Amino acid sequence: MTDTFQFKLKATDGGARLGEVSMPRGTVRTPAFMPVGTVGTVKAMYLDQVREAGADIILGNTYHLMLRPGAERVARLGGLHKLIRWEHPMLTDSGGFQVMSLSGLRKLDEQGVTFKSHVDGSLHHMSPERSIEIQGLLGSDIQMQLDECVALPAEPQEVERAMELSLRWAERCRVAFGEQAGKAMFGIVQGGDVPALRIRSAEGLKQLDLKGYSIGGLAVGEPQDVMLKMLEETLPVLPTEKPRYLMGVGTPDDILKSVARGIDMFDCVMPTRSGRHGLAFTRRGRVNIRNARHAEDMRPLDEESNCPAARDYSRAYLHHLVRADEALGGMLLSWNNLSYYQDLMKGIRLAIAEGRFADFYAETQEAWAKGDIDPV
Amino acid sequence: MTDTFQFKLKATDGGARLGEVSMPRGTVRTPAFMPVGTVGTVKAMYLDQVREAGADIILGNTYHLMLRPGAERVARLGGLHKLIRWEHPMLTDSGGFQVMSLSGLRKLDEQGVTFKSHVDGSLHHMSPERSIEIQGLLGSDIQMQLDECVALPAEPQEVERAMELSLRWAERCRVAFGEQAGKAMFGIVQGGDVPALRIRSAEGLKQLDLKGYSIGGLAVGEPQDVMLKMLEETLPVLPTEKPRYLMGVGTPDDILKSVARGIDMFDCVMPTRSGRHGLAFTRRGRVNIRNARHAEDMRPLDEESNCPAARDYSRAYLHHLVRADEALGGMLLSWNNLSYYQDLMKGIRLAIAEGRFADFYAETQEAWAKGDIDPV
Repeated sequence: MTDTFQFKLKATDGGARLGEVSMPRGTVRTPAFMPVGTVGTVKAMYLDQVREAGADIILGNTYHLMLRPGAERVARLGGLHKLIRWEHPMLTDSGGFQVMSLSGLRKLDEQGVTFKSHVDGSLHHMSPERSIEIQGLLGSDIQMQLDECVALPAEPQEVERAMELSLRWAERCRVAFGEQAGKAMFGIVQGGDVPALRIRSAEGLKQLDLKGYSIGGLAVGEPQDVMLKMLEETLPVLPTEKPRYLMGVGTPDDILKSVARGIDMFDCVMPTRSGRHGLAFTRRGRVNIRNARHAEDMRPLDEESNCPAARDYSRAYLHHLVRADEALGGMLLSWNNLSYYQDLMKGIRLAIAEGRFADFYAETQEAWAKGDIDPV
Repeated sequence: MTDTFQFKLKATDGGARLGEVSMPRGTVRTPAFMPVGTVGTVKAMYLDQVREAGADIILGNTYHLMLRPGAERVARLGGLHKLIRWEHPMLTDSGGFQVMSLSGLRKLDEQGVTFKSHVDGSLHHMSPERSIEIQGLLGSDIQMQLDECVALPAEPQEVERAMELSLRWAERCRVAFGEQAGKAMFGIVQGGDVPALRIRSAEGLKQLDLKGYSIGGLAVGEPQDVMLKMLEETLPVLPTEKPRYLMGVGTPDDILKSVARGIDMFDCVMPTRSGRHGLAFTRRGRVNIRNARHAEDMRPLDEESNCPAARDYSRAYLHHLVRADEALGGMLLSWNNLSYYQDLMKGIRLAIAEGRFADFYAETQEAWAKGDIDPV
């Protein structure tokens, strides 16, 4: 029986890869950026807008969703896709990262982690098996193994311990997930900023013959060159015929540089979170719309964008909305930013297809460096 | 020269009136509900949605807009319509009500009121002339006189003093406004809950031969029957050939009962503010979506509504969004509520046109009283 979950590598251009991850709910064109739908909503956006901006897939956060509305409740309601009205592919994280970063009273051992909800203080236990169970209840198309992510900088012994634990948990998740046609469980490479540990982790995961591989524990405070070096160490170890997902990354520049090294999938709260704080991403780089220079500028963020938020609303109005702390400011800037991210991915994919990724890379960097239009 | 600002009374049915207020930017079908665009945005909504829901006109708050972005700035940018992208009619209040309720350090005398901004503590002076000047700078189609609104209950002497001051200010606003074809300045009837003072106020304003008349100082804490009695005392004094606007009102029931007494225009923050707090207005009455009964109810708020927020999203999802304090919850419920208010106005207008307002009134009240669908 052929698995209906498939990755097809369509072209390469240098290290960059063009592909498609297909599954019953749809096809994800890679390199792909996945907007983050933390608690069952991409913050301050209608999912119609997210889709129209070009997203093939969104991400849900298991930690948030297990606490509210709860995995069993979501399952009784027919699954997360139905509840939030997104009938396209969806990926969920394992919950591990946010258990570590958001919850209180954590006790971590071989078995799993016990934690206190940041919502109501209730006690919860998360094991590799329970994480996979929850992701199944949510109805996730691409599920993540439970892992332990260590904040950098960290002692190598601590990084190694967490990496080895994550490897053992990967195996347990593999067993718990079993054989599910049309769905996938990805392993997560850990190992901090220690190349040997990253390689050991990637090799260990490769032996599990998973449907995809994530790179975790990066973009957690280390410089960009460290992150890129870890990719360069890790990616050659991973099988080329499986998708590679760099978790929680990142800026447009992080994405461009990671694509150049062979990453296929990304997710990050940056476009929506920054949008809610008045920062706009454009093809001319970042624009801080709170800045007084925009107060009487009736030009749009980008008159050539296809996104209404970028094309039809003046900087003066956006500036006013953000300064007045009005919801529409965050709504419009999140929309602009997600559209920009998706436009970037579209440009990347087209460039790889046409064998001119290096040129695209240089032109994009040049436009960012040139910066925003002159003030009025 | 014919004024391009016109009110046409098209039909009456009992006390209820069907009409049209036309001006260069468009025609307002009355009875009309005006969504409140406080600071140049109807909170948590796209103006396209507000328009599609059926709004012919929106309201802007002079107090908020004079502080941020500032009247002179708005004028330099081409006016409020252009800045916020609403090319249809717009009404502004005088700023007086919010100067009294929101700002600090007020000094009120015959000349006007000095107050401290709630945004940055800066000192401002507002006179009748300055209020009209600001509304002109904003580009408002229907402007309001500066008035003094007294919170109820209040001593009759205090109510009378404020009413007489408001009358004198009405005359100064009339002079400041001058002759402006295509635009209007409305006077505001004050007089608290004292019929004789209301009548005196209405008669005084009538002598100024204004293009429209507002009823102010109601829905400020008094019982509904007091409000309705004041309408019954006041409206017969006002000329039938001019539009009557009941300021800051109200609930769907307030609107229905005020239409029955001859009111043509309404505004209220209730649909949007309630929406942001989890309260939905429907043809079956109010629905508190935070209530646990909705947690696993996959039915929409109203499957027969034309509003996507009411028709396409489940109660379970809305419940989750509101409980999780997610922006989309307020976005969807504000949309639902404004759509319901506009549907109610549409139903009212059709009923008056067909001479069956009394039946419509009874059926609407009956449906509200019957209440929401049974729990799942």
